Amino acid sequence: MEHHGERYERGLKALQFVSGQAEPNVVDIATAPDLARYVVEFGYGEVYSKPGLEPRDRQLVIIGALAALGNAAPQLRFHINGALNAGRTRTEVVEALTQIAVYAGFPAAINAITAAAEVFAARDAED
Amino acid sequence: MEHHGERYERGLKALQFVSGQAEPNVVDIATAPDLARYVVEFGYGEVYSKPGLEPRDRQLVIIGALAALGNAAPQLRFHINGALNAGRTRTEVVEALTQIAVYAGFPAAINAITAAAEVFAARDAED
Amino acid sequence: MEHHGERYERGLKALQFVSGQAEPNVVDIATAPDLARYVVEFGYGEVYSKPGLEPRDRQLVIIGALAALGNAAPQLRFHINGALNAGRTRTEVVEALTQIAVYAGFPAAINAITAAAEVFAARDAED
Amino acid sequence: MEHHGERYERGLKALQFVSGQAEPNVVDIATAPDLARYVVEFGYGEVYSKPGLEPRDRQLVIIGALAALGNAAPQLRFHINGALNAGRTRTEVVEALTQIAVYAGFPAAINAITAAAEVFAARDAED
Amino acid sequence: MEHHGERYERGLKALQFVSGQAEPNVVDIATAPDLARYVVEFGYGEVYSKPGLEPRDRQLVIIGALAALGNAAPQLRFHINGALNAGRTRTEVVEALTQIAVYAGFPAAINAITAAAEVFAARDAED
Amino acid sequence: MEHHGERYERGLKALQFVSGQAEPNVVDIATAPDLARYVVEFGYGEVYSKPGLEPRDRQLVIIGALAALGNAAPQLRFHINGALNAGRTRTEVVEALTQIAVYAGFPAAINAITAAAEVFAARDAED
Repeated sequence: MEHHGERYERGLKALQFVSGQAEPNVVDIATAPDLARYVVEFGYGEVYSKPGLEPRDRQLVIIGALAALGNAAPQLRFHINGALNAGRTRTEVVEALTQIAVYAGFPAAINAITAAAEVFAARDAED
Repeated sequence: MEHHGERYERGLKALQFVSGQAEPNVVDIATAPDLARYVVEFGYGEVYSKPGLEPRDRQLVIIGALAALGNAAPQLRFHINGALNAGRTRTEVVEALTQIAVYAGFPAAINAITAAAEVFAARDAED
Repeated sequence: MEHHGERYERGLKALQFVSGQAEPNVVDIATAPDLARYVVEFGYGEVYSKPGLEPRDRQLVIIGALAALGNAAPQLRFHINGALNAGRTRTEVVEALTQIAVYAGFPAAINAITAAAEVFAARDAED
Repeated sequence: MEHHGERYERGLKALQFVSGQAEPNVVDIATAPDLARYVVEFGYGEVYSKPGLEPRDRQLVIIGALAALGNAAPQLRFHINGALNAGRTRTEVVEALTQIAVYAGFPAAINAITAAAEVFAARDAED
Repeated sequence: MEHHGERYERGLKALQFVSGQAEPNVVDIATAPDLARYVVEFGYGEVYSKPGLEPRDRQLVIIGALAALGNAAPQLRFHINGALNAGRTRTEVVEALTQIAVYAGFPAAINAITAAAEVFAARDAED
Repeated sequence: MEHHGERYERGLKALQFVSGQAEPNVVDIATAPDLARYVVEFGYGEVYSKPGLEPRDRQLVIIGALAALGNAAPQLRFHINGALNAGRTRTEVVEALTQIAVYAGFPAAINAITAAAEVFAARDAED
């Protein structure tokens, strides 16, 4: 149990860092409590927390993947925000999503830019 | 004509940098000469060469996208090699591709690791 | 004509079974009447109605496919509901969609769970 | 500068032709001005404007691609409209999208038909 | 039975036309005889044979879809060959696949051009 | 450490069951040892081993997902074999993959049937 606890605690911290929220909520916990736990323990507590690649670099890999797949808009917005929280500039995010046009086509890039514009506007509104 | 030339020259330099080859050849030029030219002029001469995101960071976005799509093995190998040429370590590449398991599934990550192993072996053989 | 009729009748029964509706409507019939007919005659009257795999098993294959593709939300909700109509429990559906995290990534699984939560809520509201 | 200008002007004309609008707006220009420029200069000024394939034929390729990918609804609607502007009939568009059921599955075709119905209704409302 | 026969005969003719072969063989018949029959009866006997869109136009939709998906190389080669058999020129095919770079990315287009080069070479070898 | 050990042991047993091999090897361990460990601990030790869905049912979900994605041939073959090891008949596997034609298109189904034929032949050769 302790060990699970360790992974969970480490994952929660990483997820708080990426989301910028004290109580990040990325899965419908009531419907799929185990999946919600896996996100924290495995997704963030194991993979994301590994040394060897900086969070600011992981976020580039993740927004590259999600923008290219083009079928997970909530997660793309979440991780564009996460890239900014991890220290990337808006310019770097826009450049990264523009680069996607070459590898996954213009529609994927254009829709990712729309997602970025929404994230930027939400952050501006919070300030 | 001059202007096309400028974009082409800038693109060729970027493509040489990423590929580590003096005469990189990424498209069947005889069959699709215009597509081959677009890769250099647009893909590398315009998008890749833009300031605002470092080549070493662009490579993370690109291998994230290609590993997630999982349907472009030659290009994934090319850009894993490119990430190393742009200054990323093998550890960073492996971490980036491992991160893909969370966002595009284990098969995508496993097949990308197979691609990385091939690239690493080819580089070892060259030394 | 009679033969078409047979396939259509058999398909309609299967579609009624999966949807739980007397007059299931899954395509914009006015715009694409032939496509709507193919769904019934071919999709359900031929493929779905074949012996050799139980409807409750076909539904697992279908929600696995749709959750992994991640680009067909209306059809995923339809077939999550269909899995329940075919005798699968909510637990089995949630387990199946959680399994998708391993093969198509967490975003695909998370969005499929959101779809499942909507279907479960709609069924609860009907009771 | 002149040369960029040429590509841009040629691209803008092509984009106006496809969209049927004097000031077509397909990217969030404020967020990603370079991507917006690439759409015009490269997407329409270079690729789309090339001789060797008629606009009415390019539109079939494009709606085939976008319907199959199934993850770019705004662009699919844009190019269904573009196919009609380029001289394709509604019947041809519906047949093309129905054909997609065979190559990318019924959900992709059904969702593309929904997009087509929206485009047809919007055009009817304009008349 | 007759009706099935009609669909099958019509489909076989269409498939012979697209493939240029007297006995086209596109599925592992021994393993999945019903799927093989559906290809002929439904894919070609119903969808492909419908009036409203010319075979030469259907082939553009199909190669657009398959090149964009990028995960079905045998079928892409088959339908590039089919486009030529249906009256499209090699130039038109190359233009269509180049157009895919804009909508599904350069890797999809580059790999489709490789497929086209293989088809062109095989046809040259036959002459 | 013990706890990790528990998950690993449970996962290894599940992986041995699915693969039918005493020492299953699904990732390039030398290149990505952590990813290889995650497959066992997380993929099989946590997700696959959960009660609530039978292995024979999980295999249907998995082959549905992999056949639909169409970009992970080694994993599809592995899990077709796994479905048989988990108690599914060849007929059920063929029906499941044929059903994919309706949801992800005929090419996806045809290529999955080719994978199944290879698995069936390999098992016949072993007997």
